[in-house]
Amino acid sequence: MMEHEFYIERTLRLAKKAEGFTTPNPMVGALLVKKNQIIAEDYHKKPGTPHAEALVISRAGEKTKGSTLYVNLEPCCHTDKRTPPCTKSIISAGIKKVVIAMLDPNPKVAGKGVKELSDAGIEVVYGILEEKAKKLNEAYIKYITTKKPFFILKIAMTLDGKIATPDGESKWITGEKARKLVHRIRSSSDAVMTAIGTVKADDPRLTARIKGGKNPIRIVIDPELQTPLNAQILKTPPKTIIVTKNSNPHSIQFEKLNIELLYFEDKLDLNWLAAELGKREITSVLLEGGSSFNSHALEQGIIDKVMFFIAPKIIGGKDSFPAIGGKTFKRLKDAYNITDVKVKKIGNDILIEGYLKNTGS
Amino acid sequence: MMEHEFYIERTLRLAKKAEGFTTPNPMVGALLVKKNQIIAEDYHKKPGTPHAEALVISRAGEKTKGSTLYVNLEPCCHTDKRTPPCTKSIISAGIKKVVIAMLDPNPKVAGKGVKELSDAGIEVVYGILEEKAKKLNEAYIKYITTKKPFFILKIAMTLDGKIATPDGESKWITGEKARKLVHRIRSSSDAVMTAIGTVKADDPRLTARIKGGKNPIRIVIDPELQTPLNAQILKTPPKTIIVTKNSNPHSIQFEKLNIELLYFEDKLDLNWLAAELGKREITSVLLEGGSSFNSHALEQGIIDKVMFFIAPKIIGGKDSFPAIGGKTFKRLKDAYNITDVKVKKIGNDILIEGYLKNTGS
Repeated sequence: MMEHEFYIERTLRLAKKAEGFTTPNPMVGALLVKKNQIIAEDYHKKPGTPHAEALVISRAGEKTKGSTLYVNLEPCCHTDKRTPPCTKSIISAGIKKVVIAMLDPNPKVAGKGVKELSDAGIEVVYGILEEKAKKLNEAYIKYITTKKPFFILKIAMTLDGKIATPDGESKWITGEKARKLVHRIRSSSDAVMTAIGTVKADDPRLTARIKGGKNPIRIVIDPELQTPLNAQILKTPPKTIIVTKNSNPHSIQFEKLNIELLYFEDKLDLNWLAAELGKREITSVLLEGGSSFNSHALEQGIIDKVMFFIAPKIIGGKDSFPAIGGKTFKRLKDAYNITDVKVKKIGNDILIEGYLKNTGS
Repeated sequence: MMEHEFYIERTLRLAKKAEGFTTPNPMVGALLVKKNQIIAEDYHKKPGTPHAEALVISRAGEKTKGSTLYVNLEPCCHTDKRTPPCTKSIISAGIKKVVIAMLDPNPKVAGKGVKELSDAGIEVVYGILEEKAKKLNEAYIKYITTKKPFFILKIAMTLDGKIATPDGESKWITGEKARKLVHRIRSSSDAVMTAIGTVKADDPRLTARIKGGKNPIRIVIDPELQTPLNAQILKTPPKTIIVTKNSNPHSIQFEKLNIELLYFEDKLDLNWLAAELGKREITSVLLEGGSSFNSHALEQGIIDKVMFFIAPKIIGGKDSFPAIGGKTFKRLKDAYNITDVKVKKIGNDILIEGYLKNTGS
């Protein structure tokens, strides 16, 4: 058992190497073990390229026969995609045992892969480090089961819960290490979302300024299409989506700049937006908004996870901007509860993260 | 060296047994070691009773000769107190070596104890686990060097920095374990301070409802003397001090209830109040106020330490009460900085504690 955990742990680390690049696919690492030796290991790099299982089988060649395959996600068995099903290759390669961290929640797989292997006489073990495996692919799980992205709400605040002074000063509340980690999370997210208030106040880039990182798609909630045409957010690939109420004379200028305008009628329903983003194969969204927008996103029940970066400083003032503002509040008994809370020191700052029971429709 | 740390660690644990009961004296534990064996150990119980050094010397009797004394605070050498100086007893008992965690910051001792022992031919080592020893007696150190109490600001808030809904609902934000810890801190504090707003809104008792605990003195900032005569805070020993602006017709009723009325003129200066409390031998004060009073205390620079108990829930709303409210705020560069930050999980809640550079006069 300890052996299984050791190798599965390694598949998770392999899988994570492609963090941010596999979307809308999950991160998957695999390795082959024969006579207590790893004879091949690899991971899925990006959509359209071979799956991790296929890579290790081809790499081990003849030696594959009689080996044990470790993989963090149930091998696929469906054919409506760019690469052949892994179950077939596993069976024909003569692998004698398959150890899996978690079943694939994709309804097209969901245990069918395991059954196919089992029916072919292969010994299958699954559920090894399952929680850890689920955490690694939490965005994929949400997306593949709901067709909506996994939303992370990120807050950078003072110890007294403020994200800006009454004048809107917010640069920088947290230290360099925390900000670097945010860049890494942007890189691993398909998109970053903010609201026009933040664009007007801070003119942020919302890019992933780290080595080997990739920039996320930027999404701006801008009902009246007030984003300045020279805003930083419009200047960097891959692209920016502006969510806006009505077509207006300026629309065409935005379209010229490769900006997608996503129109909504009357009032913005964030659950509708989540579905729209899902249609665009956006599986994960990092929300970096202001006081009101954060409140809005919580109220509409789209948030899956929160990450509060807390700086050990106090600014005070009842008119400073709270992390979560908005017009409404919850009674204590109805408060949004955060579960699976983890606390980490990030440089001088403290990160508290956890999950919300997503109440969105 | 490891041996020294082992025994000093033990003196600290002995000392802490009397937490909350030694005031205005420090917590002190001592033990005697001879031939690698502890031959006696004890701690100071309360003012007017023997010091830890005297206790172990009398307990070991004849065996004291040639032993090593471990003690977490420099032995006293002055005579203007209820018990004889420990240095004399140590010398006459024939102790050959004294190992000390920290020098006594009391200007009447402050190295003179060590010098006296050293001059008598005793080997003295000090500075063992000094930081830990200082932390144990942080209130005593503040009090003995400034004649003002050590102030801890305690906050119980949601993850989004709120201490109450706009209607004032605040029971209970944090869980049972966190609340129990607060009761323990009350027990180890000489006094608990709050403002009339909290008394009117919550009618708290501010007692230490734990086994073996002692109730702190209650201090209420109540400029207009609006504390109801049937308020919980007035009902429990040892006593309540009301800090108020003007004598008014009701004063006499409070005095009858054994309530001390402490009058200030015009505007309350919390540094003046700190000095007044120091005069009453109050060495430590736990501040449990509301949004505005917390802000006030920070502004006036009286806070030494903060303890933020953070519940993993979100209530939101820009009109909810922030942990630190008040009319003024700090620019980010001028923010109150918290140092020596420690983070702990307390049940489901998170405690972030640290120190402020006390700017009070």
